[in-house]
Amino acid sequence: MAKTKSRSKRKTVGKSRSTKLVLPAVDPATVKPLVGSDYPKPFCDRVAGRARRKLGDAAGLTQFGVNLTTLPPGCESSMRHWHVKEDEFVFVVSGELVLVTDRGEQLLTPGMAAGFPAGKRDGHHLINRTRRNATFLEIGTRWPGGDEGDYSDIDMAVKIIDGVERYVHKDGAPYEIKR
Amino acid sequence: MAKTKSRSKRKTVGKSRSTKLVLPAVDPATVKPLVGSDYPKPFCDRVAGRARRKLGDAAGLTQFGVNLTTLPPGCESSMRHWHVKEDEFVFVVSGELVLVTDRGEQLLTPGMAAGFPAGKRDGHHLINRTRRNATFLEIGTRWPGGDEGDYSDIDMAVKIIDGVERYVHKDGAPYEIKR
Repeated sequence: MAKTKSRSKRKTVGKSRSTKLVLPAVDPATVKPLVGSDYPKPFCDRVAGRARRKLGDAAGLTQFGVNLTTLPPGCESSMRHWHVKEDEFVFVVSGELVLVTDRGEQLLTPGMAAGFPAGKRDGHHLINRTRRNATFLEIGTRWPGGDEGDYSDIDMAVKIIDGVERYVHKDGAPYEIKR
Repeated sequence: MAKTKSRSKRKTVGKSRSTKLVLPAVDPATVKPLVGSDYPKPFCDRVAGRARRKLGDAAGLTQFGVNLTTLPPGCESSMRHWHVKEDEFVFVVSGELVLVTDRGEQLLTPGMAAGFPAGKRDGHHLINRTRRNATFLEIGTRWPGGDEGDYSDIDMAVKIIDGVERYVHKDGAPYEIKR
């Protein structure tokens, strides 16, 4: 009996859509989303509905992060920012998102992408201006020891203080919360 | 006249689907695909139809690669392999692909993913067993100085020889072609 069950299980793994995927495969629906952000007020309100599924972490990856992120109507992916050491890349999976950079706005539809090389001082973020959810993949290097960065439009930056990434004002004074 | 044209261009960038995207945005249709592989015979025949659009390179990224890759019916993504130093991740965009690893086969439909941590000695590849094209994103770390790896089912591995990644037999003897 046990042997039969075992054989049956082997045969059916992944053979139909109803079969549960197992590592190294990952079904995003099985990854619990992290909702909102750790931004200080009032910035956290603008990304409050952001839901990130950390697919790379779910697969055990450490060198880069891969998030499948959903933005409800009106929600922003982040405050507009750039990274000092880490490359970043986005790919739109569903819905429509507006990409904002120094050169203005561009509409990204499903299948469109954008990439942001480390150290390029051109802040970016995505905004969902439609009435339905939009989903995108966001990929970013995980730099050993953390990374610093700047926010283009607000009085905030990220600095490493005593080995910890902290949100700081432009004058270097930390916000109260830890990142 | 010139001023009017300039203003008009600024207003329309990315405002409609017919507008050409500009960096940092990337429309994959504008990225020329690289077809086939540099595998030695007979392995190159199994991936001959593979078409890779290097979206990360198009955006100027260097720390990881992001390819939008199309596999026609019967085509394989690669020989089944694992990497020593580089993490790897795949996400199915369209069509259906069979993921093969040591534990067997799993069917990946659009929106499903898989991740392969560096150094895990469980080879993987994707096969298109359907009658229509399948497309997926493949993301991999770019390790400075290159990476080594092994192929699970064939007499081949990748070794760094004199600073260059080379295809070698299991006994270490290089294949004639350079990687």
